[in-house]
Amino acid sequence: MRAMNVILIQPREWGSNSTHGQIVLGGERHRHIRTVLQPVVGDQLRVGLLGGHLGMGLVQAVDEHSITLDVAFTSPPPAALPVTLVLALPRPKVLRRTLQACATLGVKEIYLINSYRVEKSYWQTPFLEPEAVQKSLLLGLEQARDTILPRIHLRKRFKPFVEDELPALAAGKAAWTAHPVPDALPCPSTINEPCLLAVGPEGGFIQYEVEKLAAAGFRTIGLGPRILKVETALPALLGKLFL
Amino acid sequence: MRAMNVILIQPREWGSNSTHGQIVLGGERHRHIRTVLQPVVGDQLRVGLLGGHLGMGLVQAVDEHSITLDVAFTSPPPAALPVTLVLALPRPKVLRRTLQACATLGVKEIYLINSYRVEKSYWQTPFLEPEAVQKSLLLGLEQARDTILPRIHLRKRFKPFVEDELPALAAGKAAWTAHPVPDALPCPSTINEPCLLAVGPEGGFIQYEVEKLAAAGFRTIGLGPRILKVETALPALLGKLFL
Repeated sequence: MRAMNVILIQPREWGSNSTHGQIVLGGERHRHIRTVLQPVVGDQLRVGLLGGHLGMGLVQAVDEHSITLDVAFTSPPPAALPVTLVLALPRPKVLRRTLQACATLGVKEIYLINSYRVEKSYWQTPFLEPEAVQKSLLLGLEQARDTILPRIHLRKRFKPFVEDELPALAAGKAAWTAHPVPDALPCPSTINEPCLLAVGPEGGFIQYEVEKLAAAGFRTIGLGPRILKVETALPALLGKLFL
Repeated sequence: MRAMNVILIQPREWGSNSTHGQIVLGGERHRHIRTVLQPVVGDQLRVGLLGGHLGMGLVQAVDEHSITLDVAFTSPPPAALPVTLVLALPRPKVLRRTLQACATLGVKEIYLINSYRVEKSYWQTPFLEPEAVQKSLLLGLEQARDTILPRIHLRKRFKPFVEDELPALAAGKAAWTAHPVPDALPCPSTINEPCLLAVGPEGGFIQYEVEKLAAAGFRTIGLGPRILKVETALPALLGKLFL
């Protein structure tokens, strides 16, 4: 279910550097606002400029085709989580929900990577196309009242990514692989510094991958003996680490 | 996707108090084991006695109709979370996933309650029927390698539950309402004592409900300014509080 806790406006719709002004919204957003929020003239609705500030929009007119708002963008979006997420590409349905959850929780850098247990077909899903990814992320931002889109990086080859690119990304930062093995370190709590978190596919990273990540500076952490699905593990990890 | 990380055996199938013995599995579990795990004679499979111990099962025979295991139940299931969850009944699809996630994470007491923003129709869903609930919970236990089913309590009236039943449940324990308001206390971390956690519906508890919960001893906590879906908030809260 879509929770439009903020109406997000694209910079190209807004078209100026001003923090105040009028905007007319039509199409799918108008339908959703009209059906769910059911605003009347004089109501204040929460708005956000994508990539910019949050604010309020005073309803000036509503009809069957459009809604006119007098908008002021006044306050910064909520803080981002200081994490770069390195995530084995989940299967398509989980991918969509996971991107949305990441956007909601405030993750801003996501590397979707290959792994031995990522099925090749997952890379062919339409949910990975830029428009579909953008849609999932926007739903997540709307839920959280955030305006800053996460950046998604696709890395279809594990070894070149982990050997050639990851060490530079991890330089000087804490880095963890979430992996439920008995000798995993306990997951740290309430971190507030830049760090990296690697999360495996269903079935987990294979030992070779855990070792390659370790060679890139990643220490293995766990949340206890239970094996969690990616969509459960990720909010649990992010909640424990950052919230 | 079903992750049968342990094969759960019902006490009525086992039929004895012994910790060792032979069992023949047929039907749906047999099909899943045969298709996904593809065991051969001599393999060891993880098993668990529902309500009892975990162990291993040595494959003695597999054919098109059944699998025969020589089983020993030797080790206790993972520790439960020390929390009683008071959860506004989610809409049906979310209910199913949430029950599964709760079982996976180790929640053992769940009160599904009414709330102003719970639609009446949610109480009519087939997913609330005992067999459907049991199915969701078993999937969650299979995922986590746990054997202890959560107990689900349905409370269709908010006020009598919160006024007459909840104070006794909360007596002497920490109790929190997760509610994303600016003056919420930060969510505590790494709790290891009996406590209660109340989580609202999509759209949140209304002020009256937060106040009634406060009168029953619940303090309002939050995970920051972001508004999370129930299925994101719950693992994030449980991860932060207990894992």
